[in-house]
Amino acid sequence: MKTILFALPGNEELTTKLVQQLHAEKGEATIRQFPDGETYIQIQSDVKDKRVVLVCTLHQPDKKLLPLYYLSKTAKDLGADCTCLIAPYLAYMRQDKRFHPGEGITSAYFGTLISQFAESLVTIDPHLHRRNSLSEVYQIPCKVEHAANHISGWIKANVENPVLVGPDSESEQWVSEVAKNAGAPFIVLEKIRHGDKNVEVSVPDVENFKSHTPVLVDDIISTARTMIETVAHLKRAGMKAPVCIGVHAVFGGNAYQDLKDIGTADIVTCNTIPHPSNKIDISDMLVDGYNKVFY
Amino acid sequence: MKTILFALPGNEELTTKLVQQLHAEKGEATIRQFPDGETYIQIQSDVKDKRVVLVCTLHQPDKKLLPLYYLSKTAKDLGADCTCLIAPYLAYMRQDKRFHPGEGITSAYFGTLISQFAESLVTIDPHLHRRNSLSEVYQIPCKVEHAANHISGWIKANVENPVLVGPDSESEQWVSEVAKNAGAPFIVLEKIRHGDKNVEVSVPDVENFKSHTPVLVDDIISTARTMIETVAHLKRAGMKAPVCIGVHAVFGGNAYQDLKDIGTADIVTCNTIPHPSNKIDISDMLVDGYNKVFY
Repeated sequence: MKTILFALPGNEELTTKLVQQLHAEKGEATIRQFPDGETYIQIQSDVKDKRVVLVCTLHQPDKKLLPLYYLSKTAKDLGADCTCLIAPYLAYMRQDKRFHPGEGITSAYFGTLISQFAESLVTIDPHLHRRNSLSEVYQIPCKVEHAANHISGWIKANVENPVLVGPDSESEQWVSEVAKNAGAPFIVLEKIRHGDKNVEVSVPDVENFKSHTPVLVDDIISTARTMIETVAHLKRAGMKAPVCIGVHAVFGGNAYQDLKDIGTADIVTCNTIPHPSNKIDISDMLVDGYNKVFY
Repeated sequence: MKTILFALPGNEELTTKLVQQLHAEKGEATIRQFPDGETYIQIQSDVKDKRVVLVCTLHQPDKKLLPLYYLSKTAKDLGADCTCLIAPYLAYMRQDKRFHPGEGITSAYFGTLISQFAESLVTIDPHLHRRNSLSEVYQIPCKVEHAANHISGWIKANVENPVLVGPDSESEQWVSEVAKNAGAPFIVLEKIRHGDKNVEVSVPDVENFKSHTPVLVDDIISTARTMIETVAHLKRAGMKAPVCIGVHAVFGGNAYQDLKDIGTADIVTCNTIPHPSNKIDISDMLVDGYNKVFY
């Protein structure tokens, strides 16, 4: 079956890479806002009987949902055989249980909604914490790829004498895998969360690693509070300026500038979300994931 | 069955009016954004076995959809008997057919989506043009109320010697009804649309109404281009400064200021969308519509 890829706004560069690697067709569509804030959709390419792949990373997700839904519905209306969503960053993975009475379990609601208009999903390192699999919240075939090897490769090629530092226990799975493949030691700190922006990081024993370059690795850099506190602690303990690596450059508000200001050797992310810090290209992983869904 | 009303952000004032008129309970909920743009939902009130009414007007709709959907899903998760959406202004009524090849028919897609999480709908003067009824796009019971009588009443009470002016043929149904009930004559202009912001208005014969106060009435004031051009023409023709009345104060961008700047006697809207121009309270119409759905 012929495959045609459409870039939702902001995903053009990644989509071009995917089109090249998949030897597929690049879809032409108009997605714009009317003055009243409503979205207009027009697909110029022929999608009839084709597999339509929608490329849309999902940070700042609320305003993206309707354009994505409309593009999928329009493609089906125009005779597309099926739709596949490539969302390198998947939103709404954190509210995965009712922490307090009356809370909405948005990860499940979001998954249900996406599953109604995308017939398969490819993503990278979703924030699976209390859940074991995306299939608990998505009712469609999902393929998850992991950036750990790409990050290990980048560290090997770019950091001398690294020690991997995980900012919290949630990241241990991550950090240990990255460290192993990079042939480096690792330590994991612990964090206590007091609210969205208020996180306390425990004191690690870093005395054994003063000659190493600390490499902080986390899946999502969002407010960057955890990383900033970890960097500050490592610096106070007399360690070298660390390299900060995140898979997903969410960077809410001034987080990126704040992290730069604290003094790091480098800030590095994968290109799951377009950002100046993108240095690790994961487009080939999305191609692998896509091929596993369909072949 | 007990009824509980929840205000989505920006709908608090109208919701308070509805709660009073329905002698119902006002629901307490937290709806806020995380720093990464994801929405957090918590319902503090007991909704079990109650009819949950979500009050959410739908101008600038894209960013409102997910919070609304989440609140509805959360209420159902917490045992709500059913959900009803009161949307005084309903979005996505204009793209109701494929005007050009490849276009998405967003009015149908939006209606399908809303129908998946709201079990009934109450609204005021949706922009039904090529469609006869909301039931063509919504798969749930819908009750539509019309603001014409309220507008007629306002004109009678506030405008001396009025002549109603409809800016285009789409508004004729509107204007004739309002004029009849206000006991006033009416004329209807014709418009030719060249794009979102580019509208040409034909020259009307206004010589017979120079001693009248022109009253422009339209269902939606969005870019206000049509009204501004009509006002300009009426002024050039030597008529008095007109009163501009719209049901829905959509007012994209600088439209409100632009309309004020052209020189009007007054700009008046119904409170379907909160706006400084709101002078006509339609909350009792929403109560009527709600009662028709359920009693």
